[in-house]
Amino acid sequence: MINETYKEMLGKKSVIRELSEYATKRGQEIGYENVFDYSLGNPSVPVPQKFTDVMIDLLKEKSPMELHGYSPSLGITSVREAVAKSLNERFGMDYKFSDIFMTSGAAGAIAHAVRAVTKPGDEVITFAPFFPEYTPYINGTGAKLVVVPADTKSFQINFEKFEEMINPNVKAVLINTPNNPTGIVYSEETIKKLANILKEKSKEYGFNIYLISDEPYREILFAGVEEVYPSKYYDYSISCYSFSKSLSLPGERIGYVAVNPKDPDSTTIATMCGQISRGTGHNCPPSIIQLAVSKVLDMTADLSIYEKNMNLIYNELVDLGFEVVKPGGTFYIFPKALEEDAVAFSKKALKYDLILVPADSFGCPGYFRMAYCIDTEKVERSLAALRRFVENEYR
Amino acid sequence: MINETYKEMLGKKSVIRELSEYATKRGQEIGYENVFDYSLGNPSVPVPQKFTDVMIDLLKEKSPMELHGYSPSLGITSVREAVAKSLNERFGMDYKFSDIFMTSGAAGAIAHAVRAVTKPGDEVITFAPFFPEYTPYINGTGAKLVVVPADTKSFQINFEKFEEMINPNVKAVLINTPNNPTGIVYSEETIKKLANILKEKSKEYGFNIYLISDEPYREILFAGVEEVYPSKYYDYSISCYSFSKSLSLPGERIGYVAVNPKDPDSTTIATMCGQISRGTGHNCPPSIIQLAVSKVLDMTADLSIYEKNMNLIYNELVDLGFEVVKPGGTFYIFPKALEEDAVAFSKKALKYDLILVPADSFGCPGYFRMAYCIDTEKVERSLAALRRFVENEYR
Repeated sequence: MINETYKEMLGKKSVIRELSEYATKRGQEIGYENVFDYSLGNPSVPVPQKFTDVMIDLLKEKSPMELHGYSPSLGITSVREAVAKSLNERFGMDYKFSDIFMTSGAAGAIAHAVRAVTKPGDEVITFAPFFPEYTPYINGTGAKLVVVPADTKSFQINFEKFEEMINPNVKAVLINTPNNPTGIVYSEETIKKLANILKEKSKEYGFNIYLISDEPYREILFAGVEEVYPSKYYDYSISCYSFSKSLSLPGERIGYVAVNPKDPDSTTIATMCGQISRGTGHNCPPSIIQLAVSKVLDMTADLSIYEKNMNLIYNELVDLGFEVVKPGGTFYIFPKALEEDAVAFSKKALKYDLILVPADSFGCPGYFRMAYCIDTEKVERSLAALRRFVENEYR
Repeated sequence: MINETYKEMLGKKSVIRELSEYATKRGQEIGYENVFDYSLGNPSVPVPQKFTDVMIDLLKEKSPMELHGYSPSLGITSVREAVAKSLNERFGMDYKFSDIFMTSGAAGAIAHAVRAVTKPGDEVITFAPFFPEYTPYINGTGAKLVVVPADTKSFQINFEKFEEMINPNVKAVLINTPNNPTGIVYSEETIKKLANILKEKSKEYGFNIYLISDEPYREILFAGVEEVYPSKYYDYSISCYSFSKSLSLPGERIGYVAVNPKDPDSTTIATMCGQISRGTGHNCPPSIIQLAVSKVLDMTADLSIYEKNMNLIYNELVDLGFEVVKPGGTFYIFPKALEEDAVAFSKKALKYDLILVPADSFGCPGYFRMAYCIDTEKVERSLAALRRFVENEYR
């Protein structure tokens, strides 16, 4: 008997996917270079050449049986060691290899971290606007995603609403900084305040609420923005990482869970992820990708293009009168639409071949997201279209 | 709060893993070449050179953004097309690309197939002896694994017990042929009889019971053994495949779900797997591995060594008076131990540096498994140890 829950999900197409499909179709008509497709968060700069070189070396020089043999289910030990070392050097942490669990991207990391620290029926709080995939990610674990409304002034955390909504059913809080879709980086003040509330509430409820920090955009930080590593501020924390964005490797599905070594259960939790993976069918990421990534842990693709694109778009948006908070990182920007209904706004934009994603599914109606991981030359051409769109439709 | 279910799983170490760890330790003492390690199903022959060549070509020639970009969540379309075509040519089936869902190995395939056709609380029947990982694989979906006792005479299916145990809570039946741990290949007669019972019971219960066929050993077939493709005999069937064994790529985690095109819901089920994967955190297997495997679909590693090893071991076992059914494929053999307690038997074997896995966790106490995916030269040397073991301990 077909599972009705999953069958019903088929009917609900994601807005991002629909728009992206439209962009592809429109591209076939007028040339994709003429479609200003801001729909998808697919990196637009190549992986560092060193990754390619390491992959080729592994294929040429390592014995195929060793190279392609089973990885331990928690990840290859030398890879886990390299990840721990890199995090310790960068953030002054004290991870052991045994606190690290290798995953297939951040999606895999969240799937395992949430299962490790919740049970079905528990609540996981996140903050709007949020990556819409969090809903299936969290609900798929059996826990329930609860969304705190946005603070649309700063897109930091709406603490007033958070304190109203937190309750003893909440076993984990899921944050994403630098943030998709806003591009906002949580300040040290925000993280400290969040950590304090979690400490207080943990004491009050008699158990530790976990902070699950989704950090695929950790390395895409713009000039003058302070790097804040959430796990520095709260012991019961789990970093979920993906190399998709920093190394431009989204198709290779590689990331990790790093459990805070100050949590006395850190190694237990990382080891439990290996048990969880038996049921999710994940087991471990591909051996060759683990090995190759471990050699380029402290490298990134050339991420500077994203800041260049951001500045071009941000200045034009401000000039056109949009209400918008300047991103501190990522390759997203999150302006307020020029009419209440952002879906209608985005539809009108299509006439100008501008693909803008309305933010209803991000839990923040009235706003839209632009993913500017596209060529700068195209960004430049798109600005004229944006101006025409605003002038023709809203002046 | 740490999830107690997964925490408890940590305490239960797998016998196979314990023995394999012992073998590694013992190898450090006396040289691994002197440990007759029959514990692990890790292929011992290299991947075809063509796979390596294709990987290097992809890395050298394809644009990194295209190569490492997001794969569609159901798998890369050209890869799904190639898989369908290969299956159609080999087995006279009529798969469309849309019936195929790319997964991270057979574990990933089973995780998605079972979720697609059951709901939590349903029963999934399998047949002893069975791969012990089926327990966490199935229980992780929320369904419940129910095991039909073995037919120890032939290690085909114990139909008498099966017909006693099938009931309206059973939504799927999971088979594994060629079989781990017995090496037995289900005959056409067995598959036909199984299909007939499923058809009858489906009619009686008013819904289609699904046949989930786990086929990682499909290509490891010995001389004179008939190849039987289960999905030819029953329309409501899902093939779960892994390239781990046929291509010696267990670390690269690549496989697929192929839903029988005669099932009117075939494409719906394959597409649902993409929804399921959002909750399991799997999403899709790595792009580069998908692309490379699609170029070597009809190749295998040199599998002939397994048959050679099997014949050496089988003849010796028979000569030593073991009760054993001759394998038709895989790299496993499943003799009866020489005392009732196979755990005690395996412990005694350690004195002779023979690593034999007692089959209690395979649902068939009193038997043991030998995984003969090791060098033939080592198999030959191990036979003397086996003879000494039997003569010293049991004569």
